[in-house]
Amino acid sequence: MELYVERGFEQTTVAEIAQRAGLTARTFFRYFADKREVLFAGSVLLQEHIVGALDAASDSASPMEAISAALDAAAAVLGERREYSRQRQSVIAANAELQERELIKMASLSVALADGLRRRGVSDTNASLAAEAGVAVFRVAFERWVSEPGDRDLSQIMRESLDQLKALTAAG
Amino acid sequence: MELYVERGFEQTTVAEIAQRAGLTARTFFRYFADKREVLFAGSVLLQEHIVGALDAASDSASPMEAISAALDAAAAVLGERREYSRQRQSVIAANAELQERELIKMASLSVALADGLRRRGVSDTNASLAAEAGVAVFRVAFERWVSEPGDRDLSQIMRESLDQLKALTAAG
Repeated sequence: MELYVERGFEQTTVAEIAQRAGLTARTFFRYFADKREVLFAGSVLLQEHIVGALDAASDSASPMEAISAALDAAAAVLGERREYSRQRQSVIAANAELQERELIKMASLSVALADGLRRRGVSDTNASLAAEAGVAVFRVAFERWVSEPGDRDLSQIMRESLDQLKALTAAG
Repeated sequence: MELYVERGFEQTTVAEIAQRAGLTARTFFRYFADKREVLFAGSVLLQEHIVGALDAASDSASPMEAISAALDAAAAVLGERREYSRQRQSVIAANAELQERELIKMASLSVALADGLRRRGVSDTNASLAAEAGVAVFRVAFERWVSEPGDRDLSQIMRESLDQLKALTAAG
């Protein structure tokens, strides 16, 4: 990640990443399929963590309350990694291919959240809408968190954004 | 499009598409960069149409009311092309690369709608949230429209979905 920030994603080779990490290129490829995977390896675990929090939400929670619990879980993990998250975001923002990969991960998160809501008995359309709304809040709040100065809490920004979405739809 | 449905997207060649359309391959490439573009050529025009409707919404419209006007405009265009939309959706659903391209077009629509809302004086975060919510409604409603039996109006499904999102966030 340091190398991506210093030299740009395109200019960094796997050999350089491996060297910086004290690995051989061969060992690198045991952990990552390619140099993009360094940036996305955590996404699968994060998604599992988020969906786990959705599943663990109380039975009486409304769909958006369950989504809110999932967002809290995301914020708890990512909130610890602000500097890393900022760097990662700047690397992704500079590369169209990485942006596409990030879009795909977000779409996959939305599908997983919608599936989780369906398991809770939420109707098809409501599950999809609530999941998409949750991912929208996640993206907008994350973007704000990495770009705004100061040191505000990610979970606080997530909750604020969710409230803003609520106010927006209520006024529409 | 007929060919994609009959034979699958991967199996169809540009030569076959051109032949079916009564064009030479050379003429085909004057209109389309590649065979994927046949499916996405309309997306740019559709996006302009949708953003135009957002811009034309009354000054007093709330952000989600302006988004709703934009969705109505999308429904008016797509609503005329139900059979085509169904076929297109089934071709895209069967091919990962096309799905990615569709995700990118949706992300681009979201950015364009957020920009349009900012031009109306909506704050950064609210513009992004309302645009993402609008695209979420668009996607979910479109999906329902192409998959449900019967012949319901797309604009009606869009409005219903928007109301459902409102009810979901209000209960959250």
